[in-house]
Amino acid sequence: MSFGIIATWRMALEGVEKAAKMLKDGSSAGDALENAIMAVEDYPFYKSVGYGGLPNENGEVELDAAFMDGDTLSIGAVGGIRDFKNPISIARHLSRERFNIFLVGIGAEEYAHKNGFERKNMLTERAKKIWDKRIREIREQNLSPYDGHDTVGMVCLDKNSSMAAGTSTSGLFMKKRGRVGDSPLSGSGFYVDSQIGGAVATGLGEDIMKGCLSYETVKLIERGLSPQEAAEKSVYELTQKLLQRRGKSGEISVVCMDNKGRWGVGTNVEFSFVVSCEDDNVPKVYLANPHGSKTLYSQASQQWLEEYLKRITSPIV
Amino acid sequence: MSFGIIATWRMALEGVEKAAKMLKDGSSAGDALENAIMAVEDYPFYKSVGYGGLPNENGEVELDAAFMDGDTLSIGAVGGIRDFKNPISIARHLSRERFNIFLVGIGAEEYAHKNGFERKNMLTERAKKIWDKRIREIREQNLSPYDGHDTVGMVCLDKNSSMAAGTSTSGLFMKKRGRVGDSPLSGSGFYVDSQIGGAVATGLGEDIMKGCLSYETVKLIERGLSPQEAAEKSVYELTQKLLQRRGKSGEISVVCMDNKGRWGVGTNVEFSFVVSCEDDNVPKVYLANPHGSKTLYSQASQQWLEEYLKRITSPIV
Repeated sequence: MSFGIIATWRMALEGVEKAAKMLKDGSSAGDALENAIMAVEDYPFYKSVGYGGLPNENGEVELDAAFMDGDTLSIGAVGGIRDFKNPISIARHLSRERFNIFLVGIGAEEYAHKNGFERKNMLTERAKKIWDKRIREIREQNLSPYDGHDTVGMVCLDKNSSMAAGTSTSGLFMKKRGRVGDSPLSGSGFYVDSQIGGAVATGLGEDIMKGCLSYETVKLIERGLSPQEAAEKSVYELTQKLLQRRGKSGEISVVCMDNKGRWGVGTNVEFSFVVSCEDDNVPKVYLANPHGSKTLYSQASQQWLEEYLKRITSPIV
Repeated sequence: MSFGIIATWRMALEGVEKAAKMLKDGSSAGDALENAIMAVEDYPFYKSVGYGGLPNENGEVELDAAFMDGDTLSIGAVGGIRDFKNPISIARHLSRERFNIFLVGIGAEEYAHKNGFERKNMLTERAKKIWDKRIREIREQNLSPYDGHDTVGMVCLDKNSSMAAGTSTSGLFMKKRGRVGDSPLSGSGFYVDSQIGGAVATGLGEDIMKGCLSYETVKLIERGLSPQEAAEKSVYELTQKLLQRRGKSGEISVVCMDNKGRWGVGTNVEFSFVVSCEDDNVPKVYLANPHGSKTLYSQASQQWLEEYLKRITSPIV
């Protein structure tokens, strides 16, 4: 049987490496995916997910995450949760409940507390510095505060043909307190059905939820499109619709995988993603770009990868 | 041009009467729908929406609502908001923003406060009595706490062929603090596109979001099914899938209307709904029931309507 994992953004790489090993050793899609997203949440230099994630306009780090089991369609999600180490694990725990599977704010924190999840102040010194700098820039240059909204999202297929999907994010930088994006919303930020495939989205959540992008992508796969065709069609049709109806469209990207391990990517902006497939089981970072109604991609160069690492660790001035 | 409105549950009747008059006089779909849902929120004897809505397990009334404009696909939503009179109006106000369109908990309350929305303690004496009684029953009879989750949802078409959809609910009775159901989630609780049609759902939100029921219904209309066929197909396919994958399915109902004013209903449980269409412009209450892969419905009898009123106003003992 095939197995594999696809994930949004370069930041997923270390997590995908972990998941790829687990999948090869026979782990379930859910276990591999949870561990992969935990690795991203734990890494302090990724400024849009978990520890080190950027704060909202009040200076608080509020996190969103979701988990979906493609066999049972079980979903768990949290929105605007503060001070817990691994939102993805709380979301997965919630997916085992029948009722109250999506909890937000203080309610999500109470649930995590009562179920023994690890507390952690998720604000790093670096994130605080970036926040301080942004506040200055907004004041001095009259900029729109909203900028940056990179969600880590993954779709995973294991050797038993089970699938899982998950997302984790600190959301839109400088968001209002309590703002929830697409990431914890079924069908918008994620969707997976082990009998078809799964998809996860990243970009401006406010626009992604106007087209239920992940659900749409999975339904296109069900109707016979290849994952690549499905990802392109769903992203560009939504982008076009937003342009026609609203005069503008936010940044939108989706990655998907079907239940044979075939994968696809669609994006209306430059976008990096990570794939590990059975073929060689070595995770690779790709760079994708829109080109008319197609999304073209190629492996990221060594230079790009080095510059990425330099950029995310460079001092904040 | 056609115009009309369809809404979940008998409780929508007085609001739909208001909206029907407004639509006839040339009001926009958004204005008619907002006013209709406000009427339901304001009525103290409807125990699952707005004022008089049932509290969560902590005794707090936490409300969810959403508004969608079918022309622009603009969405606004609130989750777990306390102590504001009309959540639907806050949701509609949010739909005019580009960023931060879905706010939950304290963040939603801050936004409502800053934008001058009316404060109101939404807990009635009657709702408190029902809550006290339920707590006793759960203790004495070891019952599942979760029972009752009737969302008011409406889809509206105006004389200019513009459409709107909206929902408002106090959610699952005895829900955990911070629990968000399908009602404020795009594609699950609601979806509308003026070029196609719209749909709104009610029932067990945790299950509705596993199939993005409202988006699915609208997409089936887009693919050429009549609203009635679309509603039946979306509800029964999701019910079947939940039974196959999970061994059980919650209660699920959907109503929809296309952009010609034709409407449909699908349900896996007895379910009342209200329609007003141009034909006679007199709002009617219907009772629907599942029958194999069909949903059969007929106008509610005078007796049923009288018993309904008696039931919702009878003393709590």
